[in-house]
Amino acid sequence: MAEYTFYTHPMSRGQIARWALHEAGADHAQVLVDLGSRPPALMAANPMGKVPTLVHHALDGERVITEAAAICAYLADEHPRADLAPQDGERADYYRWMFFAAGPLEQAVTARALGYAPTDPRQQGMAGFGTYERTIDAFETLFADSRPWVCGDRFTMADVYVGSHVDWGLNFGSIPPRVAFVAYAERMQQRPAYKAAKAVDNALIAEMKK
Amino acid sequence: MAEYTFYTHPMSRGQIARWALHEAGADHAQVLVDLGSRPPALMAANPMGKVPTLVHHALDGERVITEAAAICAYLADEHPRADLAPQDGERADYYRWMFFAAGPLEQAVTARALGYAPTDPRQQGMAGFGTYERTIDAFETLFADSRPWVCGDRFTMADVYVGSHVDWGLNFGSIPPRVAFVAYAERMQQRPAYKAAKAVDNALIAEMKK
Repeated sequence: MAEYTFYTHPMSRGQIARWALHEAGADHAQVLVDLGSRPPALMAANPMGKVPTLVHHALDGERVITEAAAICAYLADEHPRADLAPQDGERADYYRWMFFAAGPLEQAVTARALGYAPTDPRQQGMAGFGTYERTIDAFETLFADSRPWVCGDRFTMADVYVGSHVDWGLNFGSIPPRVAFVAYAERMQQRPAYKAAKAVDNALIAEMKK
Repeated sequence: MAEYTFYTHPMSRGQIARWALHEAGADHAQVLVDLGSRPPALMAANPMGKVPTLVHHALDGERVITEAAAICAYLADEHPRADLAPQDGERADYYRWMFFAAGPLEQAVTARALGYAPTDPRQQGMAGFGTYERTIDAFETLFADSRPWVCGDRFTMADVYVGSHVDWGLNFGSIPPRVAFVAYAERMQQRPAYKAAKAVDNALIAEMKK
């Protein structure tokens, strides 16, 4: 039995988790989920029925991890040989930008895609992300010191999660093609694990379109 | 000089970070931020100008942590004597529910407060949280096995963050008063660090209302 069961759909945030699994070198068995009829085992593990959902068949029992960012952080910790968890001095940036992407960035991009925006300062404070423009500007400051990766010179699992937002956002036009974002995407696309993971999802997507 | 500079406002998500600072036993100097005129030092540290923002004056330089959840996770790791970081076997729940609260839960509650709801399955998939009702139902399953805390029997920093959502949501009516949520809030309110942190913020709020 594989160490992990990976519930996914190729056209979903499951792409983030697959890249993370490849970076970590984690032994996993994939279960493709038909979003119209979600398997009972998935619903038992995650009542949201969302993909990606990861089940870790650990020695002391099964552990369920949902939320793409949580899957990234978990795999980094569980697979120390891949050296993707933060070291001392990297944790501030690691947590800050993981939660920035999972929170304000995701929320600002989603709100814009769905056509709603907080209109006054009170609403902007309530929403946390304020405005889409301010969120994107704050995000760009991550690269103001010309660092290649979220934590500085070293690629970490934060780049899988934060980078996936940039990659996805540039593809779908939800993040503007500023120089720093485009250059970051080009760097991440050179990762062998990125290429391997995308090849799997792209083949599945091509198969579905037949 | 204190180990941390803590930019906050008593009526903000800064309450979460303050509770975390008290749980960690972290030596900190508070800077109260007038939201109408944010100090340049805050804007330099966090271009979003948001509170809470934490600056750690570490031996090797300054580190900035933004996002309440990131501040919690960071303090748990930096202050191991407080024993609030996850142990082996606790990380799946720790990350899963931290990111669940920072992502889908925050987003579902905010969208509802702003009078917005994704209407069709395509929009619900895009939004990640689906619907407010489904998000709250999924959240409640955390307590389905009658566990007292996010990671099981042991209080961890995940409870400061996830618990703050429950505490805040019950106060403001954005989370329904289901038995599991109310009982969880009552447990967390017994924590000495919770009481100490809230006493500071409540005194500041009372002072502002004079």
